[in-house]
Amino acid sequence: MVDNFVRRLIDHELGAQTLTPIQPLPDRLRAWNRLTGINIESFVGDVTDYGFLSEVFRSVQPEAVVHFAEQKSAPYSMIDRQHAISTQVGNITGTMNVLFAIKEFQPECHLVKLGTMGEYGTPNIDIEEGFIKIQHNGREDIMPFPKQPGSFYHLSKVHDSHNIHFCCKIWGVRATDLNQGVVYGTITEETAMDETLVNRLDYDESFGTALNRFCVQAAIGHPLTVYGKGGQTRGFLDLRDTVRCIELACGNPPKPGEFRVFNQFTEQFSILELARLVQTAAKKLGSTVEINHLPDPRVEAEEHYYNAKHTRLAELGLTPHPLSDSLLDSLINIAMQYRDRIDRSLLIPRVNWRNTRNSNRRGQQASSAAAD
Amino acid sequence: MVDNFVRRLIDHELGAQTLTPIQPLPDRLRAWNRLTGINIESFVGDVTDYGFLSEVFRSVQPEAVVHFAEQKSAPYSMIDRQHAISTQVGNITGTMNVLFAIKEFQPECHLVKLGTMGEYGTPNIDIEEGFIKIQHNGREDIMPFPKQPGSFYHLSKVHDSHNIHFCCKIWGVRATDLNQGVVYGTITEETAMDETLVNRLDYDESFGTALNRFCVQAAIGHPLTVYGKGGQTRGFLDLRDTVRCIELACGNPPKPGEFRVFNQFTEQFSILELARLVQTAAKKLGSTVEINHLPDPRVEAEEHYYNAKHTRLAELGLTPHPLSDSLLDSLINIAMQYRDRIDRSLLIPRVNWRNTRNSNRRGQQASSAAAD
Repeated sequence: MVDNFVRRLIDHELGAQTLTPIQPLPDRLRAWNRLTGINIESFVGDVTDYGFLSEVFRSVQPEAVVHFAEQKSAPYSMIDRQHAISTQVGNITGTMNVLFAIKEFQPECHLVKLGTMGEYGTPNIDIEEGFIKIQHNGREDIMPFPKQPGSFYHLSKVHDSHNIHFCCKIWGVRATDLNQGVVYGTITEETAMDETLVNRLDYDESFGTALNRFCVQAAIGHPLTVYGKGGQTRGFLDLRDTVRCIELACGNPPKPGEFRVFNQFTEQFSILELARLVQTAAKKLGSTVEINHLPDPRVEAEEHYYNAKHTRLAELGLTPHPLSDSLLDSLINIAMQYRDRIDRSLLIPRVNWRNTRNSNRRGQQASSAAAD
Repeated sequence: MVDNFVRRLIDHELGAQTLTPIQPLPDRLRAWNRLTGINIESFVGDVTDYGFLSEVFRSVQPEAVVHFAEQKSAPYSMIDRQHAISTQVGNITGTMNVLFAIKEFQPECHLVKLGTMGEYGTPNIDIEEGFIKIQHNGREDIMPFPKQPGSFYHLSKVHDSHNIHFCCKIWGVRATDLNQGVVYGTITEETAMDETLVNRLDYDESFGTALNRFCVQAAIGHPLTVYGKGGQTRGFLDLRDTVRCIELACGNPPKPGEFRVFNQFTEQFSILELARLVQTAAKKLGSTVEINHLPDPRVEAEEHYYNAKHTRLAELGLTPHPLSDSLLDSLINIAMQYRDRIDRSLLIPRVNWRNTRNSNRRGQQASSAAAD
């Protein structure tokens, strides 16, 4: 595994931390080794550094690269110009480096790349898995599904997808683009084996998901904050299914030169539906919370058609864990368990898509002022 | 005007130079001022430097920005990893800086951005101007036309288009994306006024077009080198029409928030058709040349359907200068006039799309070797 710990660094920048106390990587690797006998080798470095990445490829000679090494937050990418550019430049450079390394060192290697359902935006037609047959003026072609991403971060994933598709064409690279939905849950069978293996559970504006935020809010009796009308509908999946999808992709590689796209989610929900589910689950646990609608800090459709296909991973054998009452109970209970670590100031959105300069730190006001 | 002279620097890197002797910018600006009384202010700097760009915006307060400040060669972007990444990072960063500067300093400013017809690739359906109505499973939507670019350079333009479209949505920026075809000709009414105003005429592998290369080859009796079968079909336009298109775009700005796409070309030709036109024109000038087919150094369809729409600029009043015998005569005559400056070694393609490491300098062999 390769990590540059930038996610931990950003915690310091934002003055935020995961609700679950994440342990240092060496401790987690040692625990995993103690429990399973498996040794995971750790390389500390940045995939945007080609010298470092080359050494990793030479050393590991991977059959598959599961590439998650990207800045992954939409609000973080919308803070200001520097964050927008660093997100795009970092994500694009890292992915191009991985593509060149595969071609130069390990041409049969399968690239499993984390994309996002957010690449598609919210078109008024069904969303297919990567490609769509278009009939036009009496002719037809199978074309890449048009992309309408909603943040500089989501744009970076669209750029990656185009770059990967091209390298499959010119170099015969085999790649799977996992257009992942929003992940919920924090526990897998493996992490449940030991407290040291606990995953992050982020609830802050930038890296938390709406569902995590709602569960944290429910745990402390805070109103659930829905952005806008809450009709924003997205694909979701359980963390356990995420892990299984990656396993299925790796176990069933595409042909050389094939650029394969999977829509990696299991269910669709609107944000308001999620809020109501959490409200109901919280009530059973003795916490009564209201639902508040905040002005949407994002520029997005608050009501829209949404029907995205997701059959290809099911065909490979994915058996979904649908969002259940027990999963919500578990999340709210974790939030209650760690309630002393909850920082209410992280629950308020500060990054507004309409501004070019937002404050990224607690206690600072967002500003839309021009440069001078 | 803003220039960082990187194009002149790349001449040194490649050991190449324009056939027509281009004069230093200050000399050209002085000549223009002497002939017309018009003073064009020059800012020397890089649009990837936001401090510099901010100063330009503060000083000029532009109504429109005609943004051509990008690395513009497909083969140059395919030399190796460094050239691929510098092309994408530089082009994306510059365009994002321009977008942020517009929003922060001059929100009504019209961005006129140079894109390329190469963003579309060669789909098996008609190419529309930026957007296409898609009917699918009983529903329909007007969506961005799917992009299938053919080099890291063309990819950078696709990334730009997505970024610009997004900023139009979130900030109400008004933008015109000029998906330009291949430009031919080197003279306009203005540049013809004085030798000092002469334009570049590049014929080298990286920055020359096929038509320029053919005219230079014809002038020295060298076989015309067609890549592959020569069925590669593209949109073309005269330099005079390019200039007029920009004028028409600026004179007819889109509404705030509108992302407008023009396909900026006037005629379609295949590469083999162009070679035959040059062969015929050369014969009339007393030069008999053969047509040689070289293995295509690019990965592209050598025969394909191609029908691209280009009505929007015509609707605004563009009167095309179609490719004529006299234009070809003029180009070949210019090549004959400067035949002492012709470097035959620049006519041979060295950058192969299938390699990750190509030599970018004359006298060096291309290499597909891996990193060690």
